[in-house]
Amino acid sequence: MDYRPRPEDSRFILNAVLDAPSKLRALAPFAEVDEALQAQVLEEAARFVAEAVAPINRSGDEIGCRFANGEVATPPGFREAYQAFVDGGWPGLSAAAEDGGQGLPTVLEAILYEWLSAANHGLTMAPGLLHGAYACLKHHGSDELKARYLSKIATGEWLATMCLTEAHAGSDLGQVRTRAMPQADGSLRVSGGKIFISGGEHDLTPNIVHLVLCRMPDAPAGPKGLSLVLVPKLLPDGARNAVHCERIEEKMGLHGSPTCTMRFDDATGWLVGEPGRGLAAMFVMMNAARLHVALQGIGLLDAAWQKAGAYAAERRQMRAPGAVVPASRGAEAADLIAEHPAIRRILDTQRAWIDGARTLAYRSALMLDVAAHDADPKARERAQRWCSLVTPVLKAACTQQAFHGASECLQVFGGHGYVREWGIEQIVRDARVTMIYEGTNEIQAIDLLVRKVLPDGGAGMSAVLLELRDTLDASRDADADVQRRLAQLRYLGTTIAMAAHANPVLPYEVADDYLRAVMLAMLAWAWARIDAAEASEAERAARAGPAAALRRWVLPEFDMRLAIVKRACEGVAMAHDAAKTPAAAG
Amino acid sequence: MDYRPRPEDSRFILNAVLDAPSKLRALAPFAEVDEALQAQVLEEAARFVAEAVAPINRSGDEIGCRFANGEVATPPGFREAYQAFVDGGWPGLSAAAEDGGQGLPTVLEAILYEWLSAANHGLTMAPGLLHGAYACLKHHGSDELKARYLSKIATGEWLATMCLTEAHAGSDLGQVRTRAMPQADGSLRVSGGKIFISGGEHDLTPNIVHLVLCRMPDAPAGPKGLSLVLVPKLLPDGARNAVHCERIEEKMGLHGSPTCTMRFDDATGWLVGEPGRGLAAMFVMMNAARLHVALQGIGLLDAAWQKAGAYAAERRQMRAPGAVVPASRGAEAADLIAEHPAIRRILDTQRAWIDGARTLAYRSALMLDVAAHDADPKARERAQRWCSLVTPVLKAACTQQAFHGASECLQVFGGHGYVREWGIEQIVRDARVTMIYEGTNEIQAIDLLVRKVLPDGGAGMSAVLLELRDTLDASRDADADVQRRLAQLRYLGTTIAMAAHANPVLPYEVADDYLRAVMLAMLAWAWARIDAAEASEAERAARAGPAAALRRWVLPEFDMRLAIVKRACEGVAMAHDAAKTPAAAG
Repeated sequence: MDYRPRPEDSRFILNAVLDAPSKLRALAPFAEVDEALQAQVLEEAARFVAEAVAPINRSGDEIGCRFANGEVATPPGFREAYQAFVDGGWPGLSAAAEDGGQGLPTVLEAILYEWLSAANHGLTMAPGLLHGAYACLKHHGSDELKARYLSKIATGEWLATMCLTEAHAGSDLGQVRTRAMPQADGSLRVSGGKIFISGGEHDLTPNIVHLVLCRMPDAPAGPKGLSLVLVPKLLPDGARNAVHCERIEEKMGLHGSPTCTMRFDDATGWLVGEPGRGLAAMFVMMNAARLHVALQGIGLLDAAWQKAGAYAAERRQMRAPGAVVPASRGAEAADLIAEHPAIRRILDTQRAWIDGARTLAYRSALMLDVAAHDADPKARERAQRWCSLVTPVLKAACTQQAFHGASECLQVFGGHGYVREWGIEQIVRDARVTMIYEGTNEIQAIDLLVRKVLPDGGAGMSAVLLELRDTLDASRDADADVQRRLAQLRYLGTTIAMAAHANPVLPYEVADDYLRAVMLAMLAWAWARIDAAEASEAERAARAGPAAALRRWVLPEFDMRLAIVKRACEGVAMAHDAAKTPAAAG
Repeated sequence: MDYRPRPEDSRFILNAVLDAPSKLRALAPFAEVDEALQAQVLEEAARFVAEAVAPINRSGDEIGCRFANGEVATPPGFREAYQAFVDGGWPGLSAAAEDGGQGLPTVLEAILYEWLSAANHGLTMAPGLLHGAYACLKHHGSDELKARYLSKIATGEWLATMCLTEAHAGSDLGQVRTRAMPQADGSLRVSGGKIFISGGEHDLTPNIVHLVLCRMPDAPAGPKGLSLVLVPKLLPDGARNAVHCERIEEKMGLHGSPTCTMRFDDATGWLVGEPGRGLAAMFVMMNAARLHVALQGIGLLDAAWQKAGAYAAERRQMRAPGAVVPASRGAEAADLIAEHPAIRRILDTQRAWIDGARTLAYRSALMLDVAAHDADPKARERAQRWCSLVTPVLKAACTQQAFHGASECLQVFGGHGYVREWGIEQIVRDARVTMIYEGTNEIQAIDLLVRKVLPDGGAGMSAVLLELRDTLDASRDADADVQRRLAQLRYLGTTIAMAAHANPVLPYEVADDYLRAVMLAMLAWAWARIDAAEASEAERAARAGPAAALRRWVLPEFDMRLAIVKRACEGVAMAHDAAKTPAAAG
């Protein structure tokens, strides 16, 4: 059973829960993008994903990418599917019209990528890297570079990579050693090795545009010495540049995407942005890229949920306790496993995560649109603050749930889940990487708490939480419960900030718990909004199970995380007091 | 880096924590098995595992088993390693001397299998199935069958299988359809298909003894109509029996163990035990088999922890907060990732699980020895009760931690964890199956709460918890904390029992939470015992991190599980009261 997008589910979140159409219409570039056009784009996207992308997912996993003589062959059907993607104008959905794009809102592109990832994570990696490259070049490229590369990238005619990691420099980009030597003609000669380069070499497009993090001569040590250099596979005159793929990795999953070890041997490139400002040039696309990874997580979880739900609605094993037994059925007849409480719990829990996480991720994508286009600078700033604080939360929490939730869905299949046949184990293997790339989940937690929440004493996060509070109606029980959680979170930020004065290591120890607490409170908020949205009786009934699962099985973790953090902070306070008290005799 | 058993770690648990030597000496068959002999057996086992088994783990995964023309070729080196295993007398370590075994305690075999699984889960599947077959045959086989098969199985000269699952009958064995037709000579003709048969066909031994769950003519529907039939691959006259492997599964992992689809076409077999008592015949080995799966989980987690710990002690990335910086190191120099709090937390948490779970699993293995050999029937009964109640807890919790903890260890490697090279992703893939086979973890939870705890109103579980309480010293803070948890658990059992009267579905909904709460309280108990055991200062210092991790990051889940179950029970009470109250007007 291949994944099928369900546009009605995403549109419910977008329109009924988030009121996206009116928010988008208020932004100048999208004044004409009405609900009907949005619906049409999503219907077409869903059809494309279901017909062209989903069917080659399993063969993409089983056959995988093949490497020989410096060249990479993608799995059968990938070239044709990618060409159809380009022909349909999908790569440039949110790119500016002047660059050959469609000029549509980021939020529509977000939904497209959620579905693409759900249908075929491996294939989706290729165009998924275009958007960051486009943003970098658009904001930091010279006019000459833009004229040569921007529309090729916007339209997906040429694919792109981000070449950051080196064998000894993974999470620690400050250790990057690849050198870029300036030449008399203004170009650079790039030398060094990069690893884990997704799409570093392939047969999908004739040219590949690499954005390479390098160090120029006399650059200071550490991250401030890094520059970003554009190195194309084919030079402007058509000659092959001195950049080569040495091998591709054997991985746990994601076999449809080649993970390349790249060698630059005095390859020709051009600076993007200023020397020493390479990381800054990349930051322009950081929030969007991390949100995309969160959406991969949501998509993969949805794919796993679809598969497990379909299996549970067909497979019969044993009597289910509490199942209604029609008189026509013998006492020994087996019930659908969907009727067994343990299976119901697994399925409803994933659904609660999917809809809640979608609400937050689509809202973040809307905020990217607002941050880019709102006429009011205050509104842009608020949107930017949301993206800065919520993106690491979504990246870490959605990818963790993708892996763990897909594993729970595998469990629904029993032994059948462990074999290839049903495709569920592929989702677990594919999803695992999302917890690692674009910054490991541990780094997301540190980014959130240490780099973003604590430096302003929690003021920014408080503002975001107050914004959420103001959307609620305290006369509703569910909303009051969410308000309580949001207030607890604000207090928690203060508690950590105080403890951090006494023990600066503490925030690093509890960063993960803090991030989880934020995500869970925000999930509760999302479901309060879902609950308040206009919906038919049937839709409401379908959401009763997931809503109960959230309350019963998911949200109790919030109190646990709070307790963990508080106890750690108390421990610091006690150690601090003890240290200040002169030791007693003996 | 291949896995290496660390006998000193296991012996610390066995001797200093559990006082196993004196307990074993009190059992008649082990009066001569002193601590020195135990140590010697473990040292030799460790050497064998490290030298003969661990080195072929990765190739076993990469090359896997191959199927052609009804035959299965195991990966290179597996035949030789298995032969060495047989030659060393390892298969019969705990089998009776009269059957060709060594007559040693089960607990030593448990440790051997933990290490084997850690070193090479795929290869270990083959002999792992011998012990259940041996126990079934020993207790239920006719003298003729025993004479023909028992010593061959005890010594591992022939391997064995358990043929239970059919395509439509996984967790629900009552649906088994394979037929066994009695013949005039007392034999049976077996026909039908079985799936997911580990080691159903291979090249490790000339003969394979299948124990097949079948239905005899006129047997009632459901589980009570099942009989157990021994069907050998080679008949006593050397002719090939009509049992064939049709294919092997492509799986997520465990590629070193062939998972076979078996076809029986009027194959010749002989009844084991009485007709219709097939499941009862299997129950004799259920606790031992499930404990073995728990030990697989512990072993795999230890293997993952070893790998991640070694990597973290070599890999340098970024400044670690709070790391002590020697003056000789520049401000930009990177620290070992083992010094980063997020990594430390992952490693210490797994270590806390490994040592705690070992304490419980080794204690369970000791109880199997006590249940089999103690002169006092009351002691045997107590031991049996422990095994019955604690085995499902260990099976579910240790396998869940194996998968999730190995995945956390993978995270320590960053992107390097997702590629084959380091071997950590194999552990995650291999470990996943342990949550499914020998009864899915959902079924373990139901087995515990619904089938074992509730039927006697929680009395048996209370007795086990009181036994644990009596080993503690309430004057120690840590012990008092454990006593509180044990008391809370006893109360929780009563709460669920009462709520179940009003809503019989409730226990199925909270079975998983109940099981987790039991495991966490028992982990706390295990660590209190570890803490109280005699140890050097250095050993104590090495355990400080894991002990703190248990307290800070692991045990808070106990309160969460308690809260989930209590709230569910309160919900039942409220619904019950509402139903009894006449509806108010309107």
